[in-house]
Amino acid sequence: MAKIALFPGSFDPFTKGHQNIVERALPLFDRLVIGIGRNTTKQTLYTPEERQQQIAALFANEPRIEVQIYDILTIDFAKSVGAQYVLRGVRTMADFEYERTIADVNKRLAGLETVLLFADADTASISSSLVRELKAFGKDVTDFLP
Amino acid sequence: MAKIALFPGSFDPFTKGHQNIVERALPLFDRLVIGIGRNTTKQTLYTPEERQQQIAALFANEPRIEVQIYDILTIDFAKSVGAQYVLRGVRTMADFEYERTIADVNKRLAGLETVLLFADADTASISSSLVRELKAFGKDVTDFLP
Amino acid sequence: MAKIALFPGSFDPFTKGHQNIVERALPLFDRLVIGIGRNTTKQTLYTPEERQQQIAALFANEPRIEVQIYDILTIDFAKSVGAQYVLRGVRTMADFEYERTIADVNKRLAGLETVLLFADADTASISSSLVRELKAFGKDVTDFLP
Amino acid sequence: MAKIALFPGSFDPFTKGHQNIVERALPLFDRLVIGIGRNTTKQTLYTPEERQQQIAALFANEPRIEVQIYDILTIDFAKSVGAQYVLRGVRTMADFEYERTIADVNKRLAGLETVLLFADADTASISSSLVRELKAFGKDVTDFLP
Amino acid sequence: MAKIALFPGSFDPFTKGHQNIVERALPLFDRLVIGIGRNTTKQTLYTPEERQQQIAALFANEPRIEVQIYDILTIDFAKSVGAQYVLRGVRTMADFEYERTIADVNKRLAGLETVLLFADADTASISSSLVRELKAFGKDVTDFLP
Amino acid sequence: MAKIALFPGSFDPFTKGHQNIVERALPLFDRLVIGIGRNTTKQTLYTPEERQQQIAALFANEPRIEVQIYDILTIDFAKSVGAQYVLRGVRTMADFEYERTIADVNKRLAGLETVLLFADADTASISSSLVRELKAFGKDVTDFLP
Repeated sequence: MAKIALFPGSFDPFTKGHQNIVERALPLFDRLVIGIGRNTTKQTLYTPEERQQQIAALFANEPRIEVQIYDILTIDFAKSVGAQYVLRGVRTMADFEYERTIADVNKRLAGLETVLLFADADTASISSSLVRELKAFGKDVTDFLP
Repeated sequence: MAKIALFPGSFDPFTKGHQNIVERALPLFDRLVIGIGRNTTKQTLYTPEERQQQIAALFANEPRIEVQIYDILTIDFAKSVGAQYVLRGVRTMADFEYERTIADVNKRLAGLETVLLFADADTASISSSLVRELKAFGKDVTDFLP
Repeated sequence: MAKIALFPGSFDPFTKGHQNIVERALPLFDRLVIGIGRNTTKQTLYTPEERQQQIAALFANEPRIEVQIYDILTIDFAKSVGAQYVLRGVRTMADFEYERTIADVNKRLAGLETVLLFADADTASISSSLVRELKAFGKDVTDFLP
Repeated sequence: MAKIALFPGSFDPFTKGHQNIVERALPLFDRLVIGIGRNTTKQTLYTPEERQQQIAALFANEPRIEVQIYDILTIDFAKSVGAQYVLRGVRTMADFEYERTIADVNKRLAGLETVLLFADADTASISSSLVRELKAFGKDVTDFLP
Repeated sequence: MAKIALFPGSFDPFTKGHQNIVERALPLFDRLVIGIGRNTTKQTLYTPEERQQQIAALFANEPRIEVQIYDILTIDFAKSVGAQYVLRGVRTMADFEYERTIADVNKRLAGLETVLLFADADTASISSSLVRELKAFGKDVTDFLP
Repeated sequence: MAKIALFPGSFDPFTKGHQNIVERALPLFDRLVIGIGRNTTKQTLYTPEERQQQIAALFANEPRIEVQIYDILTIDFAKSVGAQYVLRGVRTMADFEYERTIADVNKRLAGLETVLLFADADTASISSSLVRELKAFGKDVTDFLP
């Protein structure tokens, strides 16, 4: 059976930190679906469709990576793409605790397994919200993006 | 290239919690080496050779799992068995922080990638040291062992 | 003097996790008041009055349990019902730290003592916000509710 | 049924922090057993018997408090004194995580319930090991002891 | 070169905890700028100008302390006042982790060094949000303010 | 009054991480005393005198830095060198919690103020014990040392 992982997130924007996780995890799976959760209540920097284009362009040469937008529960989306795994990057304890709770629920409700990689030390402080804030103040953020 | 993971530990004894991590991680890899670190300064419940036999017997029907004893640095042992990955189970924050530091060093010194799985909620409190302590007081510990 | 504990929360909805804390704590007290904090700024799944009915029905056979709605400070509500104790369930570190700060303030301002129980491992991942989210996506949540 | 709590520890020595937990917890129980675990491998400041005398003298006027020495498993000692509860004071996250694991095991193996109180802010940094270290260097430690 | 520190925050209101950090840190620096971040989206208890007056009055006799309002990025404001240091008080782990991420970014983007002091145990539970909440319910909060 | 800081530790050996903390903290103080605690019960890689020589050689051109060996309580040694500050580098939560307790005690017993700097991300995983372990297995550790 093909090993399929879902890497879910908002990715607004997709940072070097996200890229790093995807590239390190890819060898473990046959297919990796990057799932952009659509959140209609939050103001965003890029529309989901823009994010999808940006990420797809980044991995254009990697046929095992696919980028999709979803607006259902993550466990239902995982099922719809055939994923048995959820991929997550963690660096802080707050991340860790949050992921542990989500992972327990994903396993209990849908039998989904969560695979964690540590964010690399040099990308660990890069978050999408930081990038958005810097951009809002007119800063150059290209260093943080792929 | 074959994907090989090293699952290093003392495993004195190998608990249901360890078994759970091995079984959940196995599908991700082509080969999984359970590495028993020999520690000559600690008093142990079982000798490394006894532990090797117990674990090997447990996975006798799984040709992709191998059990070895080592007394060198974990990164050197990983290299010697061709492992690109280190597998670890985590449940507590203390685990998490400890693993993060080790993972950083393993990556920097040897390019080893660490893959984390959350210990399942119902095996999370089972540790080898707990089993040793209970056994020392004459308790039945079969519930905690494979 | 009767030992009276306040178990304060939003309880939107009251989960199996909450039920578990109440049932385990009840033997310690003469009376246990479940206090539903009214929050007029948040959108809720159930009105406070609906939650009161649901919880009261659940404990209909337990005369020592009382369910009330309040919209004043928790310390003032505790005083108004004669509670010397605040009861809280904790599982994560984030919970723990949050409760420690609140407990310090409750003690300093009102002499209230906080009694903590660990959430049971199998209900630890159940939160009201999780249940609300699952319900919003049409999932069956009866497993998480009393 | 009488509510009996066990407050287990080394208490080498019994500090103001321990005293504070005992006094705050006492109203919750009918009987509180302070259990001094005998550890034959550690060097101690006071013998278990000396500690027993010191603690017993401190609570001489409180008939509901009893001080005993034990050298069996804590869960077995709890059973032998009829305790349904284990009492613990926590302040740090490390404490919290340690207690959570022990509490899970105590519940699973013996049905024991753990009740946690937060250490008061002004006694939170006082530990027996700190007192022992200061004493070893000839410091006056009376401020930290009852 | 004069050593200049920026102590940034909302300070709505400036509490005894903030005062404590400022007074303890002052000897380390030649000049300490208390920077009030203007946040136009949050409802506030006091306007930034009111906060500026209150804090300036408190330190009227300390010529090395200056109070300013800013509405740019903290790193840009630090640069504009010539600060090489950011001063922060921490007590909880959540604080610590949050500050670590911000400090990494401040250093990477602007070469700013972060200096941490532990909040004193007796002011550690005092936060501006707590004071605002108590005040909203008509409580006397003078104990928490300078 | 001269601002004097004590940077206490075992420094067996003194790593790049230690060097980084010293260099970043030096501008804050008039004098910085690196205090090597003598521990007669632990096996060490270098004698305290060797460590003193190594560290002194490293900072030979910095007259404000002094390296001393001590075998008394840290608070007493701080007093003997006139230090009003203790300097510490932190990266992990476990560090943070440990330092918080020590800092509370140092302040209460001796009025010592603790100043924390975050360990830089790229030296955060380097510890003396790691270096000792690698060296014991014949690894080249020059990358981790000044």
